[in-house]
Amino acid sequence: RRGKMAKSTQLIDNEVFRAYATYTAIVLLKMMLMSLVTAYFRITRKAFANPEDTASFGKGESAKKYLRTDPDVERVRRGHLNDLENIVPFAGIGLLYALSGPELSTALLHFRIFAGARILHTLAYLIPLPQPGRGLSWAVGYSVTFSMAYRVLKTVLLL
Amino acid sequence: RRGKMAKSTQLIDNEVFRAYATYTAIVLLKMMLMSLVTAYFRITRKAFANPEDTASFGKGESAKKYLRTDPDVERVRRGHLNDLENIVPFAGIGLLYALSGPELSTALLHFRIFAGARILHTLAYLIPLPQPGRGLSWAVGYSVTFSMAYRVLKTVLLL
Amino acid sequence: RRGKMAKSTQLIDNEVFRAYATYTAIVLLKMMLMSLVTAYFRITRKAFANPEDTASFGKGESAKKYLRTDPDVERVRRGHLNDLENIVPFAGIGLLYALSGPELSTALLHFRIFAGARILHTLAYLIPLPQPGRGLSWAVGYSVTFSMAYRVLKTVLLL
Repeated sequence: RRGKMAKSTQLIDNEVFRAYATYTAIVLLKMMLMSLVTAYFRITRKAFANPEDTASFGKGESAKKYLRTDPDVERVRRGHLNDLENIVPFAGIGLLYALSGPELSTALLHFRIFAGARILHTLAYLIPLPQPGRGLSWAVGYSVTFSMAYRVLKTVLLL
Repeated sequence: RRGKMAKSTQLIDNEVFRAYATYTAIVLLKMMLMSLVTAYFRITRKAFANPEDTASFGKGESAKKYLRTDPDVERVRRGHLNDLENIVPFAGIGLLYALSGPELSTALLHFRIFAGARILHTLAYLIPLPQPGRGLSWAVGYSVTFSMAYRVLKTVLLL
Repeated sequence: RRGKMAKSTQLIDNEVFRAYATYTAIVLLKMMLMSLVTAYFRITRKAFANPEDTASFGKGESAKKYLRTDPDVERVRRGHLNDLENIVPFAGIGLLYALSGPELSTALLHFRIFAGARILHTLAYLIPLPQPGRGLSWAVGYSVTFSMAYRVLKTVLLL
């Protein structure tokens, strides 16, 4: 009974890995929220991308006018894509970083700053805040991932 | 000899991890298939995004007319982006979930429902099926990932 | 003291995993570079997506004209999205592959070809090179990920 279960829980018992799991779950959930925000704006702005999504508004021309782009919908979609472009590298490089044996305090510093920066980035995109608010929050998250990648390559490099 | 090899195969010997690996490979392959479907529609509809892709149709204006968007191509691309937005969180949170030591039967239930929902989502997008077919399949997959994230955060939380 | 640290460094001591970590960090960093290239073209071509990004060019109509798409910016963005569509499956399936216990030489072959193909793909997209340069480099990377997925499913299949 202990055999396989014990093995499977080793990684999750490691504190750095637990911190990684916590913050990665948080930023991935934050990214998933963008789908709900997009749906909210698509419905309230009546701006859809697929003909079958407008069928409940009637048939023919009366429904066709809702097949359009809306500035608010496009803004959320750009924020969502920016999340994909930045949270995916964080999750991938962060996993390798967590396995490279960093100090817990250093790892927590990286994870906390990244999560904070991405939440600020989303707020800056959706409110929207004047620049350089969004640009800076993007750059901070980007730098954290870069810093983790540097540590990973320094620790494990095998080309 | 046993040392490193034994360690490296521990995780893959764990049944929950094997189930995770199986279903993640399946949904990632499904997502990759969208590239081939896009290429198929771009070629059959003659709708390309890059000038160099139309060079085989001649030079100048005769080729330029194929630099256009096509509703079928755009539909597949929206399906592909929706896969990225949903399968990436599944793969990331699913890994953490698999390592958090869930029951095999519970884990299989999550993975099977997610994979089924995403295959249905693709069919609903490409055929296309009337709503709420696509919406429901999206919501089911979304809920599975959310459920796994809840278990991960409950098990490992270290902020 | 040895307990948790020893556990956390097991995976990273495995040579196949170290090779995976090295090449995944490299291709994820390459993908991240696309953000900087996009920013470079947005600034030099003065083509922005958000009104708040053009505020430094003045107010009203004088700034509004920079809210536009530019062929160079769109090209980089297509390359970036193509990276997401291909590097994400590589990172996910590659992790499972690395844990499935392949020979180091076989694993290195997969990782090196993928990384080389994706770097060539980016060059082919940005220069741009005539087709089938970009198409072939895409197909090579795609095939590598497919080959790894086949090995993963053959090794771990648990449906």
